[in-house]
Amino acid sequence: MEAKEISQAVIGRLPRYFRYLGELKDQGVERISSQELSELMQVTASQIRQDFNNFGGFGQQGYGYNVKYLYDEIGKILGLDQTHNFVIIGAGNLGRALGNYLNFERRGFLFRGIFDQNPALVGMDVRGVKVRPMEELETFIRENQIDIAVLTIPKTGAVGVADRLVQNGIKAIWNFAHVDLRVPEGIQVENVHLSDSLMKLSYNLSRYGKEQKSN
Amino acid sequence: MEAKEISQAVIGRLPRYFRYLGELKDQGVERISSQELSELMQVTASQIRQDFNNFGGFGQQGYGYNVKYLYDEIGKILGLDQTHNFVIIGAGNLGRALGNYLNFERRGFLFRGIFDQNPALVGMDVRGVKVRPMEELETFIRENQIDIAVLTIPKTGAVGVADRLVQNGIKAIWNFAHVDLRVPEGIQVENVHLSDSLMKLSYNLSRYGKEQKSN
Repeated sequence: MEAKEISQAVIGRLPRYFRYLGELKDQGVERISSQELSELMQVTASQIRQDFNNFGGFGQQGYGYNVKYLYDEIGKILGLDQTHNFVIIGAGNLGRALGNYLNFERRGFLFRGIFDQNPALVGMDVRGVKVRPMEELETFIRENQIDIAVLTIPKTGAVGVADRLVQNGIKAIWNFAHVDLRVPEGIQVENVHLSDSLMKLSYNLSRYGKEQKSN
Repeated sequence: MEAKEISQAVIGRLPRYFRYLGELKDQGVERISSQELSELMQVTASQIRQDFNNFGGFGQQGYGYNVKYLYDEIGKILGLDQTHNFVIIGAGNLGRALGNYLNFERRGFLFRGIFDQNPALVGMDVRGVKVRPMEELETFIRENQIDIAVLTIPKTGAVGVADRLVQNGIKAIWNFAHVDLRVPEGIQVENVHLSDSLMKLSYNLSRYGKEQKSN
């Protein structure tokens, strides 16, 4: 119920908490205060408390938070206690890189299929999964309970493929194509626009250069 | 001067404007009103005007903005009228995908070198650039005016490599390693944490599922 009101900004910060808490847990740290976590993550302690209060505060008592408990709870909020089957559309370098990334499996994201329209790539092995032709897409996602599709194809084909995915029951699209997808309500889209990120870097680089010259 | 006060949130939106304006320009559209741009991009017209006012408003007169002028000006603000030499550290699938991405070159980002510690990858060709051993990193970036490094290596090695890069004159790091880098002031870092993005998708997916069940 309460989860409905939480802003995307807070949600966007949860994976970073999860990452730091996972590292602390692996290092054998059992408890941590918001002040210590603040110094480690370089965000204010009040920001941390505010973020956590969205989820009931995670019962900070006496000396700080229980690391393992906090890690597990944030993992549950992020839905990482469930498993999701995903397919990759586009078996180029980026698609293969994502297929080979073992960390996703540790988080419950199971790599089930990879598709490409290029016949030269069909049959290629990506971590035990054979590249299939695009013609098999619809049947495959319906028969294998696929809920996430990763789009690593050029923007010209992305809109049409997204429509096919949605029509066949995909619930979420992780979109690397350089285009904004319009999907029906209830379909989740998370964009990774690499060029946009590089341009932001470029802006900060050129702005800093100008500041240096003007000093 | 005025650029100094502009928030990272506004900067983060500029590449998307640039992308839409580039598409309009390619379609031969000469002028566009903030209302039309608003409908196209699905942001409010007042947001667009506010964002543009940070840069003097781009002289909207009579019927809307001059598309080509606006595209060029935003490109200049983003520093895309300059060229930057970049190297990639890590010649795995992700590193090779980025090396092969021609769009970066169109934006003035020139792919000059790629490095890997794995001897099996050294010598491999990535779009005409041979993979070099890590031992050559320092000399190469000093002698080739490299200002951007792209980090696509596992997090265990990333912190040490970032230090080496900074000591040898790199001004910006595009970081795909799953770790937050601490760099001296004046060094720009832009993070692409793919796992974080996937977790955000997972959250929205599992939240939506719960809402559906409770309805």
